[in-house]
Amino acid sequence: MTSSSENTPQSNMQTDTMKSSWQEIKRSVRTSRKMHAQFANKIPHDFVFVPIPSDSSKPDMFSLSDKQTSSGTRILFLGVLPDQRENTLLYIDVPTQPSPQLLDKPSEWKSALGFFQANSIHADKYSKEEELLRERKRLSVHGITSYQISSDNSQLLFPAAGSLFTLKLSDIGRTEAPEPTEVFTRCSGCRMDPKMSPNDPNLIAFIHENDLWVTNTKSQTEKRLTHTHKGCKNPKDETLSAGVACYIVQEEFDRYTGYWWQPNNPSGQHRILYETVDESEVEISYISNPLGNPGLDTYRYPKAGTPNARVTLRMLEFSTDDEGQISDVVIKKLSEPLSETFPWMEYIVRINWLPSGKGIWAQLLDRKQQKSAVIYIPLCKFERLASEMNNLTSSSPTMDDGANNVESDVEMSDCTMSLPSTSSIKILYEETSDIWINLHDAFHFFHNDPADEVNFIWASEQTGHRHLYHISCQLKKPNRSKRHSTGDLVSNECRSCVSCVTPLTSGEWEVLEHPDSIWVDEVNQNVYFMGLKETVLESHLYVTSYANRQNPARLTNSCAAHSVSMSKDCQLFITVSSSIKELYSAKVYRLSPRPVAAVNLLEPQGLVPDYVPPDLFSFTNSNGDTLHGLYHKPRNMEPDKKYPTVLYIYGGPHVQLVTNSFKGLRYQRLYTLSSLGYVVVAIDGRGSPHRGLQFEGYLKNKMGQVEISDQVEGLQSLAQKCKFIDLSRVAIHGWSYGGYLSLMALAQRPDIFKIAIAGAPVVNWELYDTGYTERYMGMPLTNPEGYLDGSVMKSVNKFPNEPNRLLVVHGLIDENVHFVHTTHLINALVKHCKPYQLQIYPGERHGIRRPDSNEHFEVEVISFLQQYL
Amino acid sequence: MTSSSENTPQSNMQTDTMKSSWQEIKRSVRTSRKMHAQFANKIPHDFVFVPIPSDSSKPDMFSLSDKQTSSGTRILFLGVLPDQRENTLLYIDVPTQPSPQLLDKPSEWKSALGFFQANSIHADKYSKEEELLRERKRLSVHGITSYQISSDNSQLLFPAAGSLFTLKLSDIGRTEAPEPTEVFTRCSGCRMDPKMSPNDPNLIAFIHENDLWVTNTKSQTEKRLTHTHKGCKNPKDETLSAGVACYIVQEEFDRYTGYWWQPNNPSGQHRILYETVDESEVEISYISNPLGNPGLDTYRYPKAGTPNARVTLRMLEFSTDDEGQISDVVIKKLSEPLSETFPWMEYIVRINWLPSGKGIWAQLLDRKQQKSAVIYIPLCKFERLASEMNNLTSSSPTMDDGANNVESDVEMSDCTMSLPSTSSIKILYEETSDIWINLHDAFHFFHNDPADEVNFIWASEQTGHRHLYHISCQLKKPNRSKRHSTGDLVSNECRSCVSCVTPLTSGEWEVLEHPDSIWVDEVNQNVYFMGLKETVLESHLYVTSYANRQNPARLTNSCAAHSVSMSKDCQLFITVSSSIKELYSAKVYRLSPRPVAAVNLLEPQGLVPDYVPPDLFSFTNSNGDTLHGLYHKPRNMEPDKKYPTVLYIYGGPHVQLVTNSFKGLRYQRLYTLSSLGYVVVAIDGRGSPHRGLQFEGYLKNKMGQVEISDQVEGLQSLAQKCKFIDLSRVAIHGWSYGGYLSLMALAQRPDIFKIAIAGAPVVNWELYDTGYTERYMGMPLTNPEGYLDGSVMKSVNKFPNEPNRLLVVHGLIDENVHFVHTTHLINALVKHCKPYQLQIYPGERHGIRRPDSNEHFEVEVISFLQQYL
Repeated sequence: MTSSSENTPQSNMQTDTMKSSWQEIKRSVRTSRKMHAQFANKIPHDFVFVPIPSDSSKPDMFSLSDKQTSSGTRILFLGVLPDQRENTLLYIDVPTQPSPQLLDKPSEWKSALGFFQANSIHADKYSKEEELLRERKRLSVHGITSYQISSDNSQLLFPAAGSLFTLKLSDIGRTEAPEPTEVFTRCSGCRMDPKMSPNDPNLIAFIHENDLWVTNTKSQTEKRLTHTHKGCKNPKDETLSAGVACYIVQEEFDRYTGYWWQPNNPSGQHRILYETVDESEVEISYISNPLGNPGLDTYRYPKAGTPNARVTLRMLEFSTDDEGQISDVVIKKLSEPLSETFPWMEYIVRINWLPSGKGIWAQLLDRKQQKSAVIYIPLCKFERLASEMNNLTSSSPTMDDGANNVESDVEMSDCTMSLPSTSSIKILYEETSDIWINLHDAFHFFHNDPADEVNFIWASEQTGHRHLYHISCQLKKPNRSKRHSTGDLVSNECRSCVSCVTPLTSGEWEVLEHPDSIWVDEVNQNVYFMGLKETVLESHLYVTSYANRQNPARLTNSCAAHSVSMSKDCQLFITVSSSIKELYSAKVYRLSPRPVAAVNLLEPQGLVPDYVPPDLFSFTNSNGDTLHGLYHKPRNMEPDKKYPTVLYIYGGPHVQLVTNSFKGLRYQRLYTLSSLGYVVVAIDGRGSPHRGLQFEGYLKNKMGQVEISDQVEGLQSLAQKCKFIDLSRVAIHGWSYGGYLSLMALAQRPDIFKIAIAGAPVVNWELYDTGYTERYMGMPLTNPEGYLDGSVMKSVNKFPNEPNRLLVVHGLIDENVHFVHTTHLINALVKHCKPYQLQIYPGERHGIRRPDSNEHFEVEVISFLQQYL
Repeated sequence: MTSSSENTPQSNMQTDTMKSSWQEIKRSVRTSRKMHAQFANKIPHDFVFVPIPSDSSKPDMFSLSDKQTSSGTRILFLGVLPDQRENTLLYIDVPTQPSPQLLDKPSEWKSALGFFQANSIHADKYSKEEELLRERKRLSVHGITSYQISSDNSQLLFPAAGSLFTLKLSDIGRTEAPEPTEVFTRCSGCRMDPKMSPNDPNLIAFIHENDLWVTNTKSQTEKRLTHTHKGCKNPKDETLSAGVACYIVQEEFDRYTGYWWQPNNPSGQHRILYETVDESEVEISYISNPLGNPGLDTYRYPKAGTPNARVTLRMLEFSTDDEGQISDVVIKKLSEPLSETFPWMEYIVRINWLPSGKGIWAQLLDRKQQKSAVIYIPLCKFERLASEMNNLTSSSPTMDDGANNVESDVEMSDCTMSLPSTSSIKILYEETSDIWINLHDAFHFFHNDPADEVNFIWASEQTGHRHLYHISCQLKKPNRSKRHSTGDLVSNECRSCVSCVTPLTSGEWEVLEHPDSIWVDEVNQNVYFMGLKETVLESHLYVTSYANRQNPARLTNSCAAHSVSMSKDCQLFITVSSSIKELYSAKVYRLSPRPVAAVNLLEPQGLVPDYVPPDLFSFTNSNGDTLHGLYHKPRNMEPDKKYPTVLYIYGGPHVQLVTNSFKGLRYQRLYTLSSLGYVVVAIDGRGSPHRGLQFEGYLKNKMGQVEISDQVEGLQSLAQKCKFIDLSRVAIHGWSYGGYLSLMALAQRPDIFKIAIAGAPVVNWELYDTGYTERYMGMPLTNPEGYLDGSVMKSVNKFPNEPNRLLVVHGLIDENVHFVHTTHLINALVKHCKPYQLQIYPGERHGIRRPDSNEHFEVEVISFLQQYL
């Protein structure tokens, strides 16, 4: 639901006169977008820590180019080199011995690939699958955008230029431009979501046309493993997929893959756990795409209250022989489907192998998103598909993949060998909520569990704030009524095997939910995590022990917000940090155990020339909540003069606008506006994240009804202090949920807001998807008043009759908040004979991506404000 | 291509201040639309002349309600009664004896149906088929919109309320509200294009789901006659139809039916000639329709240069037994398809039975629309479909209908009985053109031809202006080299059987092409026709003899433009006339032989209160052509003041804006603008119709390149005379082709036009259809420069950089000029970072129909002009 469209570059405008011509605005926007691109490109990301290959580690006389880094850690990352436009794979080396002079100047970023150009080999365009993945992941960079390191640190795999490439890690740094090897294929069209086998980096699985395939790069063998895709002309007839997360799971639950290699294979058998998705009952949305071919996009899009995709777990097993041939492919299913074992289950939101590879863990969620369970599935619960061996073209609702599998006599081999003494599915953890259950990636399963135990760290909001818990489970016998320290945290449902739940953190603050938010040092029994303990405005790295309860200790510098990556052994970490006043810096620290700066990856950029940072402010709303906001003063402000004001809004769950991090990049447009003489304000009202579930839960069942008053109160409170705000000239502007609230604001408070600029707005929650909408609003049938009162459609008659107060902006092929929303809105505006302005971006989805579209949009917004505010 | 969207009501505005609020404009628009509706509803149309049933003619004691009309002619027509909103079936009676007092006051319109409400019985909504037919026919009225009288004048048939109804003609006038009989059916969904058999009014054929059906109302028997529709879920898979004219034939060639009853059946055999259409090779256009269900419309739409639908002729034969059962259905095809006999043929544009029923005539047209032939097809050329009898579900490209037909042994019975001694297809007339061949309905086939002759009157533009010709053909033997009076008019191609072509009219003026434009009195050998002999600005009824050449005599009053309907015996005619200064009047005349006024159907309305009519003007362009225009002065004009000017434009072929007819209804919006203080100008430049083919042909191959200069010259010429025109404040506004030229004008002459308001514009001729585009522009492959230079896309960089100079308006589900045009335009505008404004009408097609949409559109246009011109 959130959008990356705001992720558009810039810095300062060259003019601050109030009325510029379209051409002048265009020139200013173009200049600031160029400047912004330079700053934005400097930020490194996607760090991986590997050992520096030593001379002796390779028989082929690997010689280091830099003697200083003859041993230690190599940090691979993605970034853009000066004078380049594309993201590429970079690295720096961190010596084992601290070297103070390394801190004097930032380390030189070295290219791992040399001249490799990711987007120019085959084509400049993305396939539709890639486009949609970029939408789901909110990816805006080009070039190399992801890579994977094999578990033995020998090889690197990355998708680029519509293909897949591997590179030996030992080749990096050896020559100017090591040659990546293109992974052989006979598939036409793109291969998505590639993953190397943890047991053999030469085995690369990938998704092609919604089926799982595997390639052996050594033997140049390629094999299709599943057969769900039938090759029908009509996309309506292709309802099955294997190994691909469905739309809702990607967009609303942030899981982008649908298959998982077994982390080890003691028997030599290769295993892939995957899900098959059946979308046959999901409603179809048609989006005409005049610039595309065939001019029509067909999506399975479950609207609130309508059927979701159905998911089934499968286990793939196959062998490789000495020549690397892939054979003996067997597909297994659960003896009893999860939907029967857990009839309340609607979604499998998180799933993976246990580190031991001896079983699976999965987090299930019910449709109302108020009940969740983490379960354990022993490997032996998967059994051969019966009798479907020859049913190659089957499309029966049992969703058997019908792969052309051969008989195998190893099928039960692992199950009894080294596995726990239970062979039943167990509940490792469960919880319910009166509000809703927010998903997170703050978990860790321990590597060296005894056979009959599962120990893990898991985050939960059961206390009202997200905190970490250490959970121990005995698989041997169910602990039906065992008491544990948090009392009611875990229910006593049968099959639960929880023996102990120990809180590791607590208090009126939150542990962050992001994927890179916890790391566990199993040797020293420490857990490192990202949290907001100091202030909700700054994310920091903390450490605590799970052996002895203690207060978490902060490891990152205060007065900045941090984004951290940590090495597996928890010896090194990198923090990319900024504050509201200062641009990004990136520094490597060694933990010994207190952090000691080791290498500068990005010199603190300090202030951008001419950039005037926004100010933070707080106020108490009439409900008694302390709310945070920020504001930009207009540039070259004159005393006693009042200025028009733009209230930038998101206002929905999961997006925090007000933090102590640099705003000049992601919210460049706001700064541009201030440099043109506008006051710019942003407020995180009730419903925004990281303030606890209760605070977020104000929106429960009544989205659209509570948000605007916080914004108005904040604005008025600020205007008391900042006399330069002209309250008679306030515009509200936002995208996605912020577009929705911009519309609501104009309808509810036309006395406050002179103008609304609504981008890609939801206008009626019944048109939005299940996974998001039902979490906050319940089902349309059980909350009809909420859906009605939360619909812009109900308030269309309240829109102002003056022209030029409402500008709606929408990408025509938005497959998330469909253009249909805007169509419905305009249909109602026409019926009520209300004026509106509209800008459409024909080739754009939910986030505006093309530079020309972004430029046009920015010029249009500024021009509109200059004319009418 | 032309649009009915301009057909929106009104009269005068209540305010003439230059800047009104949105609400004030809304009130004014609403008021004037109401007033307009009252005037518009007064105009009767669709006249049919029948004898007044006499008392003795019916056994059931039919008694007349009006003694004065005990004998004479009854004129049926459609119109709206005072205080009604719906069109209904009305009549007046015209006594045989002239009665001067009938002219004193207009005759009272009597309702033929009483309280019958056409739109409220079943539903208020139209089916999609009905909606599309209304688009093709540019129908905007509601209620009863068409009706048919049986050939024996006994019964009336009309579609209404999603069903079909019959009414005995003798019932009309007998009671207050005679009861129409609903025609029995088992079909769900609508029955389209119903036609009574000329031989038995109880037999009613109709189209249901693209197949021909027939009902016997006497026996309540219903039978599906063809089986092309397969009942597939996906509209893509339904590519065949029977009895339905394809899109291009309806939209661009004005033929709305695809089947024709044999006018007489001497053998008792019923016959229906029909065409099957195969659209499998026609490109599919998808139009998402968010307000519809399933949200997607799928159209077979042949874009310029792409394959058209393929058409094949078929002959249906069936019998009815004594109980009215329909049996012995036989389907026949031509022994050699027309496409083989005439390999150059692309379209069958006109086709029907000869009045004798002994054969078929058809007008064929080549793809370039520069070659046409009228051909004769003897009935015996149709032969039984071989061996396909059992092939019920066949969808082979031979397009055999696969009807479940039974054997019949009467199949060749008629063919040898009474038919001409030729059994081969003959060419009755052919022509070629260097420019293009405009189609027309100005033809008449004589009823009492000798067996071996076909005599007919046909219009042609071979001299450069459309004139009538009397053509005689000898079917017995081909006249390969016979000379005739027009020399080169007919080629000597083999199979031509033309013996004589005699021009009936000539000169630098045109006979009109409309369906109701010629009538032939075969007794007195006179032909009556509508023409523009006096002036191109006034259509009049003329008469001439085809026995002795003479100058045509005008029969209608000068200083007005007439629309005429005539009785079959050419004894009575009705003219509905108006002038630029006066509203419509409708009067019945008796021909004796000079016209004598008989009855007033609609009193001359005279001037509308407060209405100031436009003035006509002429000028000579730099090419030496005299062009006509009209202009509205601004209301309450002050001396020496200059006023902003709106140039209303169509500018394409086939639409004549400047005539001596009342403009206050169809062009109400223009008057509204003048009443708000704008000068409003309209000019028919080169390319407009009725000035001869050469004049129209200026556009040949270069649409978009020649039109604007005539408009600019006309505007400047007028401004010389009318000093109140402010040439620095000129807006150009039009719809469809006029939308296209509005864009072209702004791109080509931004120095002249400050503002363009473009409705439903074509932006690139490659996106428009075959039938229209190729006629004027040739094929994209043979005229690439013309397509490029005629494309708005080429000129996007020339659009102004100032905001508020370009407003684009488009119906989102326009299936004629698809919204795709606007999408492409906006995509290019964004690429060039050009400002634009956009208004979309989600539920609207090419013509804006919903009253709320029309009101919104009018308010928006006025508001836009008031703000920015």
